[in-house]
Amino acid sequence: MIKRRHKMPIVSNDFSDIVYNRRSIRKFDTSVKIPREEMLEILDKTVTAPSSVNMQPWRFVVVDSEEGKDKLKPFVSYNSVQNETSSAMVLIFADLKSQERAEEIYGKAVTQGKMPEEVKEKQLSSIVPMYENAPFEVMNEIVHIDSSLAAMQLMLVARSYGYDTNAIGGYKKDGLAKAFGLDEDRHVPILIIALGKADEEGFESVRLDASDVTTFA
Amino acid sequence: MIKRRHKMPIVSNDFSDIVYNRRSIRKFDTSVKIPREEMLEILDKTVTAPSSVNMQPWRFVVVDSEEGKDKLKPFVSYNSVQNETSSAMVLIFADLKSQERAEEIYGKAVTQGKMPEEVKEKQLSSIVPMYENAPFEVMNEIVHIDSSLAAMQLMLVARSYGYDTNAIGGYKKDGLAKAFGLDEDRHVPILIIALGKADEEGFESVRLDASDVTTFA
Repeated sequence: MIKRRHKMPIVSNDFSDIVYNRRSIRKFDTSVKIPREEMLEILDKTVTAPSSVNMQPWRFVVVDSEEGKDKLKPFVSYNSVQNETSSAMVLIFADLKSQERAEEIYGKAVTQGKMPEEVKEKQLSSIVPMYENAPFEVMNEIVHIDSSLAAMQLMLVARSYGYDTNAIGGYKKDGLAKAFGLDEDRHVPILIIALGKADEEGFESVRLDASDVTTFA
Repeated sequence: MIKRRHKMPIVSNDFSDIVYNRRSIRKFDTSVKIPREEMLEILDKTVTAPSSVNMQPWRFVVVDSEEGKDKLKPFVSYNSVQNETSSAMVLIFADLKSQERAEEIYGKAVTQGKMPEEVKEKQLSSIVPMYENAPFEVMNEIVHIDSSLAAMQLMLVARSYGYDTNAIGGYKKDGLAKAFGLDEDRHVPILIIALGKADEEGFESVRLDASDVTTFA
């Protein structure tokens, strides 16, 4: 674990501005680098997002070096500007076997005095077999949901640090996990978040009114 | 479209408090009802979340009546307290054929002067066939991601209005769309968000450190 030496400055704490003025930014200021320590601080806040039975299947690969960007290039050919200009391309993967860290997660809760040992044992005795026996399709949906919740939070937390983002869904998935040192049998790519200091304004998107996509019952 | 007569009060605009003090709340104050107009305002802010090629596949069923709650009951047997006490159970579905509203969405952008007609035509001529020809597995993942991004934003927007939430993944999916009047061949259930005024404190969850789920490249 990297020890945090200091807290990075939060640029904005204005919820409305951060959330409702978020735009997809595709071109970033190449002179701005985000220290890895600051990136971990952003990700520590990202992972307070909710997670099904707290299994936290999200896994991040922060591509912020020239070598890393070069390796990523063939996977993001439609989004080369983001790859070339962003401070980091955050690859969000999901671990299909997140239950293998269940003992670590729930053990941490016990150590911190947030959960009695008996509760941990009881919960894990039902959660772990449930996850182990879930069909691929079911587990794939669960980890897509959890990791996307974290992705949204990442985009917002980044803005509170003065950065902007672009969520990229159109990229080559085959081979991506392996190229970045992850076991591809268990790590599925979810989204790539380009992150950095905006160098363009971005467009305000048009949305259907809530009333056009909502019914009451 | 329901006309909004007035803006509802925002209770908090403190980003850090809203995001980092969010807890899963399972028991709500049953005396608090959220007017449907206010709910639509919350959802209008929810759907500013990013969406792949702006297809906005999210669909909401807001279950806030006694009849609706009764109908939902057999689907959420592990979460009956939330169903009984929340102001609303927001069922988030995703439309597997969201491209059928592409013309409406991109047409709105043109009408609002945010996109030239030629750009709309050019984009739709590639997006619509791409979505139409995508295999179920691919489209299912795309709509899970998009709808989960919106789900996270909903949980945060709700807090800015003074409400709390519980994201529920464990519920009976079979028959849910049909029970609430949606075509089940195209609408897949993503998450249920219980929403209301908290009547308990909620637990702070334990998370793995970002450094334990992150690599740099």
